[in-house]
Amino acid sequence: MRGIVKERLFTPGPTPLLFEAQVKAVTRDLHHRTEDFRKLVRETVELLRGYFNTKNDVLLFASSGTGAMEGAVSNLLSPGDRILVGTAGKFGERWLGLAQAYGIEAVKVESPYGKPLDMDEIKKCLDRSGPFRAVFVQATETSTGVSHDVKTLGALVKERPETVLVVDAITGLGTTVLRPDEWGLDVVIGGSQKATMMPPGLSFASVSEKAWKAVEKAKLPRYYFDFAKERKNLAKGETSYTPATSLVVNLHGVLTYIRETGLERLIANAAMLADGTRQAARALGMKPFAESSPANAVTAICAPEGMDSGAIIKEIRSQFGAIVANGQGTMKGKIFRVAHLGYFDAVDLFALIAVLEIALTKLGRKVDLGSGVRAAQETYLKHSDEAQRAGEAA
Amino acid sequence: MRGIVKERLFTPGPTPLLFEAQVKAVTRDLHHRTEDFRKLVRETVELLRGYFNTKNDVLLFASSGTGAMEGAVSNLLSPGDRILVGTAGKFGERWLGLAQAYGIEAVKVESPYGKPLDMDEIKKCLDRSGPFRAVFVQATETSTGVSHDVKTLGALVKERPETVLVVDAITGLGTTVLRPDEWGLDVVIGGSQKATMMPPGLSFASVSEKAWKAVEKAKLPRYYFDFAKERKNLAKGETSYTPATSLVVNLHGVLTYIRETGLERLIANAAMLADGTRQAARALGMKPFAESSPANAVTAICAPEGMDSGAIIKEIRSQFGAIVANGQGTMKGKIFRVAHLGYFDAVDLFALIAVLEIALTKLGRKVDLGSGVRAAQETYLKHSDEAQRAGEAA
Repeated sequence: MRGIVKERLFTPGPTPLLFEAQVKAVTRDLHHRTEDFRKLVRETVELLRGYFNTKNDVLLFASSGTGAMEGAVSNLLSPGDRILVGTAGKFGERWLGLAQAYGIEAVKVESPYGKPLDMDEIKKCLDRSGPFRAVFVQATETSTGVSHDVKTLGALVKERPETVLVVDAITGLGTTVLRPDEWGLDVVIGGSQKATMMPPGLSFASVSEKAWKAVEKAKLPRYYFDFAKERKNLAKGETSYTPATSLVVNLHGVLTYIRETGLERLIANAAMLADGTRQAARALGMKPFAESSPANAVTAICAPEGMDSGAIIKEIRSQFGAIVANGQGTMKGKIFRVAHLGYFDAVDLFALIAVLEIALTKLGRKVDLGSGVRAAQETYLKHSDEAQRAGEAA
Repeated sequence: MRGIVKERLFTPGPTPLLFEAQVKAVTRDLHHRTEDFRKLVRETVELLRGYFNTKNDVLLFASSGTGAMEGAVSNLLSPGDRILVGTAGKFGERWLGLAQAYGIEAVKVESPYGKPLDMDEIKKCLDRSGPFRAVFVQATETSTGVSHDVKTLGALVKERPETVLVVDAITGLGTTVLRPDEWGLDVVIGGSQKATMMPPGLSFASVSEKAWKAVEKAKLPRYYFDFAKERKNLAKGETSYTPATSLVVNLHGVLTYIRETGLERLIANAAMLADGTRQAARALGMKPFAESSPANAVTAICAPEGMDSGAIIKEIRSQFGAIVANGQGTMKGKIFRVAHLGYFDAVDLFALIAVLEIALTKLGRKVDLGSGVRAAQETYLKHSDEAQRAGEAA
């Protein structure tokens, strides 16, 4: 018996839930072919537009995020098309897997795990190896905690009328400033179990006018993830197939909460938590894995020399019920990942760092207890002061 | 103001929810890459096997039922393959739409809406127009309330080693006796918002050894609905992509309830409700749409001569909060459909028939109030007596 130990998720999805929205979702039988539900769908799509920061259409599907990623491939491309994939981690590789599944030739621009994509290299590839029907990247690579410069990439793709830009922002949305319309992010992909504070089971895709033109020409087979069919039905507040009704109600609730909180505050919150986590890691003598361009969504931290990251995770889990993610694939055992997606606050940060300090101590590392927490507290105060000054200046 | 009016679903999906299982699903944050969740997944797959009445693998996906239907097409077929589709309603036509989306030639054996598929005709087609890679049908056609004889069809397909049988049992499961292993139903498709008493968002597919051999050879593109990948991961209690965690917890709860209740009792309950609904309709001078081979899942009733079925539905909805489904497509306005999927009991039946009698009266039809209810009560008593005698004989 460990006495009272609460389970806490610090994983990059699923993430902590906004309980009040989830409870609302569970409290009634619900039929989707009713005016009530159509109204809910229309409002939810509007809320999604706000959350995506776009005027483009936003589609929603009953699936995990990978489903909408597959839809971006099957709705934009035809046999014989060539695409450029920018990859620097496990989720970049998912684009390659999808291209392979559909027999699409993908030219790869790769950065090592932990580094951001090199936009000069992508520009060269676009110039020399194109034309490409589409470019596929991540906004933030969840497996390494790196943020890619999709703004610069958008400018590169915008000037190529034959090419659309697809951005997996599954962990980027709600953690990272994204301006799809201004920057030319033609298709942006999201999922429900991330900064949206709700369980998995819904995926989203925003689609620009440029992308809709590509959809019209695209010949790859699709049925369940048919973008054009979904757009047509959503305009009536309907979905092509039975929607995941309870999750849609939940989504409406969390997006209302996010709108009331303010999207920019949600993003600033993630930025503060990520900064605080990095400062705390450094104070404890550990290196953030992403030395440049770290993501706000999730922070990957290198385990101290000679220590398996899995041991740290296990210690935190078994003693304190908090779940932190291991590295994936070749990074397993080398890094651990702490999420800042959505419903986390400064108190969560301080608590986790305190727990981390104890775990390191138990694993035999000499730790000045409280030193990591202090770094996190100082970061919190710095961000608060800056926000206050910005508020006064405005 | 209407005073107290409770919302009640009598629609063939979504259906009334088993509230205790749903509440359990909502009460905690949950991560899927944990031993706890792996155990839950493994148990859920075992419970699904019981629910499907099969020893075959059962896969589960975060999607509505159509997603698993698409998976059956993309995982079993290759470009150039020919298939036979038996269709007698809107869901049969979905198989045709899927074949078309993937460029697969589908030979159609059709029955008029309201009639079951003619197995002699299917046999002729198999003999004369084959070979086919697969045959696609429904166990019960939800749009018309008709049950197809998949047992006879299974015997026809079983003797053809090159052909697999795919049965959409989305509303058949839990309402209809199905013996996939004995009858040779190679792939059986299910969805969560039906007799499983929970919200939409999960789909299921059972896959026989014969079907797995077809999967190995199949070349159509698939990624999110990749059967072989899902089988491999489920063996470890994992899913290929983030599972809809809250819905999986819910599913575990409802399948446990169904196991405790007894699958055969769940099916007998639907049979009793369907029979009672038909008898009541006849007592009120209306015809069940399916004159032969009516389904237990849903009963379609023809509106009285000169009366729009939509008017009946509207009356029931606005006065009593009960939602009954209209006909789909060309059947709209002609029939209304009452579901018996899952969490309905005899009390629900008596209440709905009473409400229907009042609606008909308000719409100007002369009704002997209580006469429909009496027919339903007599049917209930008859089924109870038979069940008791069967119990004593056993």
